[in-house]
Amino acid sequence: MSAKTDVPADPALGVTSARGFRAGAAAVGVKKLTEKPDVGLLACEVEAAAAAVFTRNRVSAAPVAVSREHLARRRTMRAVVANSGNANACTGDRGLADAREMAAAAAAALGCPPEAVLVASTGVIGRPLPMDKVRAGIERAAGALAAGPEADLAFARSIMTTDTRPKQAGARLALAGRTVTIGGTTKGVGMIAPNLATTLGFLTTDAAADPDLLRAVLGRAADATFNCLTVDGHTSTNDTLVVLASGLAAGEAGAAGRPIAAGSADAGRFEAAVTAVCDSLARQIAADAEGGTKVIEVRVTGAAGDDEARRAAAAIANSPLVKTAFFGEDPNWGRIVSAAGYAGISSGPETMRLVLGDVLIFERGRPTGADADRLRAVMKAHDILVHLDLGAGAGRARFLTCDFSYEYVKINAEYTT
Amino acid sequence: MSAKTDVPADPALGVTSARGFRAGAAAVGVKKLTEKPDVGLLACEVEAAAAAVFTRNRVSAAPVAVSREHLARRRTMRAVVANSGNANACTGDRGLADAREMAAAAAAALGCPPEAVLVASTGVIGRPLPMDKVRAGIERAAGALAAGPEADLAFARSIMTTDTRPKQAGARLALAGRTVTIGGTTKGVGMIAPNLATTLGFLTTDAAADPDLLRAVLGRAADATFNCLTVDGHTSTNDTLVVLASGLAAGEAGAAGRPIAAGSADAGRFEAAVTAVCDSLARQIAADAEGGTKVIEVRVTGAAGDDEARRAAAAIANSPLVKTAFFGEDPNWGRIVSAAGYAGISSGPETMRLVLGDVLIFERGRPTGADADRLRAVMKAHDILVHLDLGAGAGRARFLTCDFSYEYVKINAEYTT
Repeated sequence: MSAKTDVPADPALGVTSARGFRAGAAAVGVKKLTEKPDVGLLACEVEAAAAAVFTRNRVSAAPVAVSREHLARRRTMRAVVANSGNANACTGDRGLADAREMAAAAAAALGCPPEAVLVASTGVIGRPLPMDKVRAGIERAAGALAAGPEADLAFARSIMTTDTRPKQAGARLALAGRTVTIGGTTKGVGMIAPNLATTLGFLTTDAAADPDLLRAVLGRAADATFNCLTVDGHTSTNDTLVVLASGLAAGEAGAAGRPIAAGSADAGRFEAAVTAVCDSLARQIAADAEGGTKVIEVRVTGAAGDDEARRAAAAIANSPLVKTAFFGEDPNWGRIVSAAGYAGISSGPETMRLVLGDVLIFERGRPTGADADRLRAVMKAHDILVHLDLGAGAGRARFLTCDFSYEYVKINAEYTT
Repeated sequence: MSAKTDVPADPALGVTSARGFRAGAAAVGVKKLTEKPDVGLLACEVEAAAAAVFTRNRVSAAPVAVSREHLARRRTMRAVVANSGNANACTGDRGLADAREMAAAAAAALGCPPEAVLVASTGVIGRPLPMDKVRAGIERAAGALAAGPEADLAFARSIMTTDTRPKQAGARLALAGRTVTIGGTTKGVGMIAPNLATTLGFLTTDAAADPDLLRAVLGRAADATFNCLTVDGHTSTNDTLVVLASGLAAGEAGAAGRPIAAGSADAGRFEAAVTAVCDSLARQIAADAEGGTKVIEVRVTGAAGDDEARRAAAAIANSPLVKTAFFGEDPNWGRIVSAAGYAGISSGPETMRLVLGDVLIFERGRPTGADADRLRAVMKAHDILVHLDLGAGAGRARFLTCDFSYEYVKINAEYTT
């Protein structure tokens, strides 16, 4: 999940940094605390090329169904409407009607067809949306549409649930003589597991890119970032990651440049920048995970194949025993190698090599007798690298996770009460 | 995991209740608190038919390797030697030599070949066994060999790690005119997930049963009980479940009856009783799970097949979000249906039916509007039944799990420190 690009992600950029986009938000009490924004609207002044990836949970929410429907009918979108505090999941026909009404209300405010609006919701499952509040919220968010840092932040806040801070990232790069901007926001921070680990994420860009290229770029970027992220191994019902491309980079409205050609050097640089932005957003989720006090990067190499590496990395990253040991700053590395051991790997401990931070701790089936003080120092850090080499092949994978704390239990024991 | 037998498990029976068995234990400081027994010896006065199932973790401990070796060479065993406080896992060649020495020391004390002794260890991974202590412990345990409730309890305590209480169960039944006794003990209570969920379990019986029958009976009994149990989804390196059959029921030494015939009515009744004992032991693990305050039985029916039902039940039983909600006595049922949703099931929410305790809460894709007071009452109970019907077929499975508490985090953050 390291940024494989010369364009570092810029946290000062948000969803309206790219040309053509405006955002607005409103606080209408879908969340319990009414002073917090809970309805957001992100609009493009032109038809934006669109692509999205959604949860693979068989129990997916009404807004996911509606957004999939709209994307199946149109390759361009004008807006995304979102709410937090209520997932509109497991809500039956009424939930579907409510999600459609959200799109229609946003479309009416913007003067576009309802099918040109994507819908996203996040929050508690199984309760009907309070549509009176949501309707009012969409109207107010539409009235507040603006570009700039304040609008970025207002929208970023409107999708937060148990997040303690808004999450934004962006990148600027030169493509075919134009300065292209990418901006994005996401929210976590529970019910986070592949695929996706997003719950919600929205990227905008003023690059000129057709929907097919966008879809391919977004899919690969998500695989390398959001899909390698786990907080609790629980894939949500509402995961949605959207990218909208206005094509308005460094030009006036309508003066879109030629689309980026698939397979070109520009396409590669664009993909690297999108990946860097997704990487930054995914890391922000891990760093703000419910109750999390540390960010742990699990790197597995030397597997028989990438799939095997991914299984082993996921087992380590999801093990409550591994995660509580990190919370306790306890170098209980036996839990790490044993988690890999039950992940269906083909090799055994005799070829394994485990490095915690910069300390080699286990090699060829036995402990190295690593210095305890050095290990304790590694475990005290906020960001910790776990590198397990299986010694069996060239397969590799990475996962990003957090530790498991009292606070995680507290937050999740009390979430709806 | 309900007992499918007319022979209820009897908690007053232990590993020496069946004829021919004696047990002893010693406290030698393998565990940190030296007053707690940590070396145990279970011996049979005759060659006992033996069968065992072991962890499927690719990283398995030295005692598992040695026990597998011994069972590959002999169909009968004279003893099991066990220690707690140290798993002798990830300890390389030295660990293997230490496990062999444990068998040899027990064999010397009993006057039998080392290959007639099975070895089991449980505790922290990756540290060499303190063999001076273990050797002394085996000698003292051999000197203390006895039959009766005190010996049962001493052995049961010698295999405990974070268990707060010893776990025993047994059953008595009439088979071919003889009274047959089955007794057993097990320990949990972390690193518990299929397969096995045991960490360690030892059953003895004075039934006359050949090793092939024993192996088949034990395998099916484990599948129906220990293999449907999860505390933290982390399959241990040391899981071992052993059964020894002396054939001495209601007779004198050497006067063993005819072995139970495979496929006979007696075989069926014997299997039902073994399963009832395993069920009781597995429930005791769930009830004593690290930090657990509740026992949750997850029943999935109506799946496309038993495998699908098992995947859904395991996903629900392992979800930290589900488990923290139970700890909070919070009927956050959306987490239950969404966990099933990411388990790779073929049906969707529109055919699901979820019952919590005796309250129907979700049906045909939407909430039933169940009475909140009744739901709160269900969540306050110690034992809670979750029944999810997928509405797609005849597949079914059950899982037993516990909730996730502050105490779980505390225990596991501090386990080696």
